[in-house]
Amino acid sequence: MINVNFLVFDDFESLDLFGVVEIFGRLTNIYTLNYYSMKGGLVKSSQNAEMMTQPIAHLTNEDILIIPGGKGTRKLVKDSEWIKKLKHLSLSASNVLTICTGAALLAKTGLLNDKKATSNKRAFDWVKSVNKSVFWQEKARWVGSGKYYTSSGVSAGMDMALGFIADQHGRKTAEKIAFDIEYVWNDDPNNDLFIS
Amino acid sequence: MINVNFLVFDDFESLDLFGVVEIFGRLTNIYTLNYYSMKGGLVKSSQNAEMMTQPIAHLTNEDILIIPGGKGTRKLVKDSEWIKKLKHLSLSASNVLTICTGAALLAKTGLLNDKKATSNKRAFDWVKSVNKSVFWQEKARWVGSGKYYTSSGVSAGMDMALGFIADQHGRKTAEKIAFDIEYVWNDDPNNDLFIS
Repeated sequence: MINVNFLVFDDFESLDLFGVVEIFGRLTNIYTLNYYSMKGGLVKSSQNAEMMTQPIAHLTNEDILIIPGGKGTRKLVKDSEWIKKLKHLSLSASNVLTICTGAALLAKTGLLNDKKATSNKRAFDWVKSVNKSVFWQEKARWVGSGKYYTSSGVSAGMDMALGFIADQHGRKTAEKIAFDIEYVWNDDPNNDLFIS
Repeated sequence: MINVNFLVFDDFESLDLFGVVEIFGRLTNIYTLNYYSMKGGLVKSSQNAEMMTQPIAHLTNEDILIIPGGKGTRKLVKDSEWIKKLKHLSLSASNVLTICTGAALLAKTGLLNDKKATSNKRAFDWVKSVNKSVFWQEKARWVGSGKYYTSSGVSAGMDMALGFIADQHGRKTAEKIAFDIEYVWNDDPNNDLFIS
């Protein structure tokens, strides 16, 4: 089994997380889903939903790391200790996927330098300002750069997750998941309807 | 402020809930989001996510009630005490919205009798078997019948929630939310791409 480790923080955006959760959660024979935060315990989303998490000190595998976005990222990019730990986790992970402004957190670690990446088009200027050494792609639903995947805003995370599944397990597997959750997959990473 | 009361249970489907959460959560000047379960405390989704809830004994307002679907519904339709409480809550709510197999729970109360409703097309035969006095609509993304709204599977909940917002606050408000969360709204309730 491959671990999918979701790293959350106060004021994360609910759908950033749970859209991707839903898609990985459909492959119960391949993936185990785990929820972490820096210190563990209850973490509250921007939509007032509190979820239980394990502390990252308990995260010992090196599988897939997923980072949502949301208002909480504005504070975290300035938290050097948090960013340092994220860098450590990201270096050892087999893959790192970010949704929305989660890309700003990953960009802050420096690990996206000289790589293509994208983020929410509603917050794009701010995300770009966090690290100008990233090759930010304005017109992209999602971007895969080696082991790093970054998606556009909120619901784009679902499209990216299906794209990642297609890359790993074949397109038919991704299409079956989309069908089973009755989701119209925007399957072209270059077709971005939400640029300003 | 209008309360949006999400009623969850063990083995609910994550995206059934959080897709709709995301949409109501965008109108922070109109809606307050609350999470309930029968007894309160931690409730675990089918995707291994544990969330904190209040007991329904604390639910005293008569605003909007939202019921997700998921594997847990199979057990709950047989729990007459749970269904009785759901009926009580639904009668007093201003609106009741169900996602996916959440429609089976509402149907079991009898409140959908002689009304049009829909549900997940992957579980449609089972849902229909729960109550044959409902006018089940096979080809529908979602259905609004007076104060009751029912949606098709999982991600269809987002389309229904946007449709509900459009009915309540106008189409432009719904379109702005979809744009802000970079979601391609399937805005025609009669266009169902997922019938068998």
